[in-house]
Amino acid sequence: MTTSTPAYDTLAQSWTRMYHFSHAQAIVGWDQAANMPPKGMEARAAALAELAALLHRMRTDPALPDQLARAEQEPLDDAQRANLREMRRDWQAANALPESLVQRRQLATSRCEHGWRRQRAANDWAGFAPNLREVVALAREEAQRLADRMGVSRYEALMDGYEPGLTTAQVDRVFGDVRRWLPGLIREVTRRQALERVVEPAGPFALAAQRALCEQAMRVLGFDFEAGRLDTSAHPFCGGVPEDVRLTTRFSEEQFLGSLMGTIHETGHGRYEQNLPRDAMGQPVARARSAALHESQSLSFEMQLGSHPGFVNQLAPLVQAAFGSQPAFDPQNLHRLLTRVKPGLIRVDADEVTYPAHVILRYEIERPLIEGEIEVDDIPALWDAKMMELLGLDTRGNFKDGPMQDVHWPEGLFGYFPCYSLGAMYAAQWFAAMRREMPDLDARIGAGDLGPVFDWLKSRIWSQASRWTTDELAVRASGEPLNPAHFKAHLEARYLAG
Amino acid sequence: MTTSTPAYDTLAQSWTRMYHFSHAQAIVGWDQAANMPPKGMEARAAALAELAALLHRMRTDPALPDQLARAEQEPLDDAQRANLREMRRDWQAANALPESLVQRRQLATSRCEHGWRRQRAANDWAGFAPNLREVVALAREEAQRLADRMGVSRYEALMDGYEPGLTTAQVDRVFGDVRRWLPGLIREVTRRQALERVVEPAGPFALAAQRALCEQAMRVLGFDFEAGRLDTSAHPFCGGVPEDVRLTTRFSEEQFLGSLMGTIHETGHGRYEQNLPRDAMGQPVARARSAALHESQSLSFEMQLGSHPGFVNQLAPLVQAAFGSQPAFDPQNLHRLLTRVKPGLIRVDADEVTYPAHVILRYEIERPLIEGEIEVDDIPALWDAKMMELLGLDTRGNFKDGPMQDVHWPEGLFGYFPCYSLGAMYAAQWFAAMRREMPDLDARIGAGDLGPVFDWLKSRIWSQASRWTTDELAVRASGEPLNPAHFKAHLEARYLAG
Repeated sequence: MTTSTPAYDTLAQSWTRMYHFSHAQAIVGWDQAANMPPKGMEARAAALAELAALLHRMRTDPALPDQLARAEQEPLDDAQRANLREMRRDWQAANALPESLVQRRQLATSRCEHGWRRQRAANDWAGFAPNLREVVALAREEAQRLADRMGVSRYEALMDGYEPGLTTAQVDRVFGDVRRWLPGLIREVTRRQALERVVEPAGPFALAAQRALCEQAMRVLGFDFEAGRLDTSAHPFCGGVPEDVRLTTRFSEEQFLGSLMGTIHETGHGRYEQNLPRDAMGQPVARARSAALHESQSLSFEMQLGSHPGFVNQLAPLVQAAFGSQPAFDPQNLHRLLTRVKPGLIRVDADEVTYPAHVILRYEIERPLIEGEIEVDDIPALWDAKMMELLGLDTRGNFKDGPMQDVHWPEGLFGYFPCYSLGAMYAAQWFAAMRREMPDLDARIGAGDLGPVFDWLKSRIWSQASRWTTDELAVRASGEPLNPAHFKAHLEARYLAG
Repeated sequence: MTTSTPAYDTLAQSWTRMYHFSHAQAIVGWDQAANMPPKGMEARAAALAELAALLHRMRTDPALPDQLARAEQEPLDDAQRANLREMRRDWQAANALPESLVQRRQLATSRCEHGWRRQRAANDWAGFAPNLREVVALAREEAQRLADRMGVSRYEALMDGYEPGLTTAQVDRVFGDVRRWLPGLIREVTRRQALERVVEPAGPFALAAQRALCEQAMRVLGFDFEAGRLDTSAHPFCGGVPEDVRLTTRFSEEQFLGSLMGTIHETGHGRYEQNLPRDAMGQPVARARSAALHESQSLSFEMQLGSHPGFVNQLAPLVQAAFGSQPAFDPQNLHRLLTRVKPGLIRVDADEVTYPAHVILRYEIERPLIEGEIEVDDIPALWDAKMMELLGLDTRGNFKDGPMQDVHWPEGLFGYFPCYSLGAMYAAQWFAAMRREMPDLDARIGAGDLGPVFDWLKSRIWSQASRWTTDELAVRASGEPLNPAHFKAHLEARYLAG
């Protein structure tokens, strides 16, 4: 029996064409960050805007709703049906907002982000707030339209754009749990670590040696250099396409651990992309599942593996070979350096123990902000109170290193922050599941045998792409949906044991 | 009085959009040559094919003929009228061939080029000839269609794609002239140089030092690194876009002059692109005029300037600073190295004196081949006879370094070869005009003052873009259309004087 699926086939062809244009978009965007000289900016922005407009026209093609409806009635297999579900998500995201709102939003975020670059350095909250108010107003309007269509709250509608199906009830439950034990844990860990002696590495560290070390670490972690590269950019990211993954890092002669651990982080993103299934490549079902799942891979590499004492034992000789011997490069000392816990003002500099406090704080501010329960003017006081409560830090008057520190709000990216910490929790959950299945996992990691880790991630996460919802994927991979107990157990085992 | 040009404005908008997509195409294409890892090939080819198909659809938009016709009737100024002329050329080129012929041609050239890579190494003319026959058959069909439309001969129609307005009568006259004096000149120069003592540079030459030297030479030659880069690729080229020019070169530790002079050559292309007029950027009138004009810029830099004794005096200290002192780096010896004349089998390795012989030979074979006066099987015997006649070299049985040496024929690029030598002739003509206007030009070059050269090229060539036909441009720049006497005078002055 042959089955006929003409509407589905037409849709698949359209998505393949969009994939090709997205390829150009990804490479041109990567080039902008990694290569482009300054005078190329204007022409590049115009070219990228043209590609974005083309893709928007394709995603809002008036023929799509009918094709999607007809494909629903066709005899599809399960994978095709999952693909159709993801196509519908793409379509909804592209069609939810009227063109005029998209343009007003673009203008407001450009203005706010542009001003923020100067205002942040000047600690100028008063100058920043009016621009942010405009961004928030438009984000609320966008969120309301999405919420009406989806039948959820405004903030939940925005989160769904990054983490399909994630509910505020789920985040409340998870973050509420973490909130109860985290401040105590931080106090206990910092108390213990106050007694430790840690030797700082002595620089300078030659850039060529740093680059070679990063590439070595990527090889150890299984990155395929036949299908990707490492380059430098002002802000590290994982770009390119699954067939050609472009990682970037940045180097400073004064210290090497930042670029090394940053590269290990991006390598986790990169291996996810490199190991997405090839048979449906170009279709939405073959894309990485979500932002939190992607972070779960980068943090599996950076935190679960990268700061694992067994892995650090492997890393130490590479560091010594790169820069010569130093007391700081002793494996135990290197491990202490990588697991140093210290409450600080800046999220991106935070260790894995204090990091969730930064995310919870932002969630507890941006969620009521989008729901209309608080206003932009309320942010500084809330920020100060929560920083004191969660991390014991006084931030009064310091807007620069407070609510103005991240680019997310000026750019109107509300609803993304939770994904960072959900990713850390999923990563701990994956490693807990691995340990249940492979009781000798830590010994194997200590012996430099990372194959079992990669095999597990490849079969459970990477190869599954968007075949399942996030919850289904978590259950299939680890036996349960997101459970923050594994994250707590991981932190206690690493920071309080012994 | 305001003028209304709605059809012209619509066309200009379409070409601006095509320019944006071409930007993506150029950067993605450059990336493929300079950065892409091997496993990225398949997805990259699909993305580039999608962009090419999109641009083809835009250029064959059924609305264009009517818009072009209506724009002709609108009150355009001279620059707009020149732009409309170039738009029409674009339209004709894209619409001349039926889709099926384009596809058959693509298949035949892919097959021929693919086989050629292996067959060339194996000196396998018998294996190569059937594939080339197919390519020639389709090139004749394409040429016939273009010729019918334009009312010119087949070969002239193909040449027009690279050098608008160039006639075979013009090429016959110019090459016929060169053919008369070139073999005698080559004999005389090689006879003189046989008495010279030339010291070869002693390697190895560190790649980092070579790269720095190339970038220094680019700076001396005015390349704007705020609007472009130098990278490496297997085959050097000038890519990117006028706002962001991407030059490539290749390095070998054994010798540095190849990459240095290659980089100087590409810098000529690069400065032409970087100095195209900005006010009409994106419109065809703002594009570089033609292939021969582009070569006239690269050869102005590589040959007229690069091997100028005054310029070599400037270059020698840079070479010494890069690699340490050597007898070979004495300015006079360096100049001898750069002006060494030696008949050889390979076009791309040829010096500026013997180079035209290679081009004339190809022209005298590919022209009758396209016109149907000879067949593929006639090529080897003609090649052997002409190599003996023009360069005194015996090529019998050596297909590899004979008619199989260039990628042009396997790729179906018939009609391009003449541009190389016309470019060399135009370059000589530009410098002759400069010397008439600035009698102290050579002294200035010798003093390291290259400003007058760049100012002249910028005002006469670069900034004029496609405002005029090639003949008009040559007359406006130098007082006459192409005149090969200047090339002859240049060679005699450089190689026979003193």
